[in-house]
Amino acid sequence: MVRIAVLVSGGGTNLQALLDAERKGILTSGKIVLVVADREGCKALEKAKTHAVPSLMLDKNTLGKAEFEKKLVEALEENGIGLVILAGFLSILSGDFCRRFEERMINVHPSLIPSFSGKGFYGLKVHEAALLRGVKVTGATVHIVDNVPDGGRILMQKAVEVMDNDTPETLQRRVMEQAEWIILPQAAEMMCRTIDGEKENTL
Amino acid sequence: MVRIAVLVSGGGTNLQALLDAERKGILTSGKIVLVVADREGCKALEKAKTHAVPSLMLDKNTLGKAEFEKKLVEALEENGIGLVILAGFLSILSGDFCRRFEERMINVHPSLIPSFSGKGFYGLKVHEAALLRGVKVTGATVHIVDNVPDGGRILMQKAVEVMDNDTPETLQRRVMEQAEWIILPQAAEMMCRTIDGEKENTL
Repeated sequence: MVRIAVLVSGGGTNLQALLDAERKGILTSGKIVLVVADREGCKALEKAKTHAVPSLMLDKNTLGKAEFEKKLVEALEENGIGLVILAGFLSILSGDFCRRFEERMINVHPSLIPSFSGKGFYGLKVHEAALLRGVKVTGATVHIVDNVPDGGRILMQKAVEVMDNDTPETLQRRVMEQAEWIILPQAAEMMCRTIDGEKENTL
Repeated sequence: MVRIAVLVSGGGTNLQALLDAERKGILTSGKIVLVVADREGCKALEKAKTHAVPSLMLDKNTLGKAEFEKKLVEALEENGIGLVILAGFLSILSGDFCRRFEERMINVHPSLIPSFSGKGFYGLKVHEAALLRGVKVTGATVHIVDNVPDGGRILMQKAVEVMDNDTPETLQRRVMEQAEWIILPQAAEMMCRTIDGEKENTL
């Protein structure tokens, strides 16, 4: 059983999808034991409390990047975290941090990478760019996090149709429902099995 | 009824899909009346002959770009062409040519634009790049041709799953079968209806 930390910045809808996947038996090889938010007032923190998952708020703005990452590493190590999931987490992590959790950190991005990914593409901006280019198909990607934004190995992708009357908001919601909330728990389960398998091979 | 010219450089599988779509009643608002190849020995030319579609070979290498385009324009105008379809056509057309056939020329590209598109991405190179990046979803795009390579307005896109054991060749074949051969005739029909509609509005 891999101990999972979920890092959040906002509403926690991806966190909710992961918690639901635990309940439904989709995510069985790992357990969410810690939720960390990088800012105050995230709804995701309330969701963690509702589900009795220990949570921690590290205000990045107040702490500064270096201190924020130091405290984050401490929390992850104290809790024996085997997999870090970035679930709508907006802070960019340093190269050092990424190397420390190499092959043990995943992110969900709301487009079919390499389209609409990399620096500057986050949240609604991704969907605004997709509509501006006029694509008819978009989707979501779960990938390994390395020190290139949205650049790591792709684990899963799922396509979503764009509708003629879509706004960035309606498209964002449909990409969540039809892609992110499905592939993020599946990819988390896949990663946990891999990490567990590696542990067994080492023992 | 819109008179269609199909421009080809190779095997003519997309031409075949268009001819099949005519036979099956998927492409009903336009008729393929001319096939033009930009090099000798294209199998597509044989396909045109088999289906009794008039064809023309303009060897771009021998003619040079300017003379090639001049003769191409002449052939298209003599034949009263209302829609030009680039179907595996490898020559890059000049800005002048693109402007002359503005909103009357479409192309099929074997990826989900903007991924793996633009300069240098053609044929197998597209699928090699997709496999190298490790995407799990790719597809095809039909778009209006303007003077930016693969940059015009997107008409249709269709997603195709990448398999773990795919080679560039198997992926290319599946993208043709599951996407290009489906959306190219559909987009051609859509364009013919639009062009016919505009004509009626002008009369």
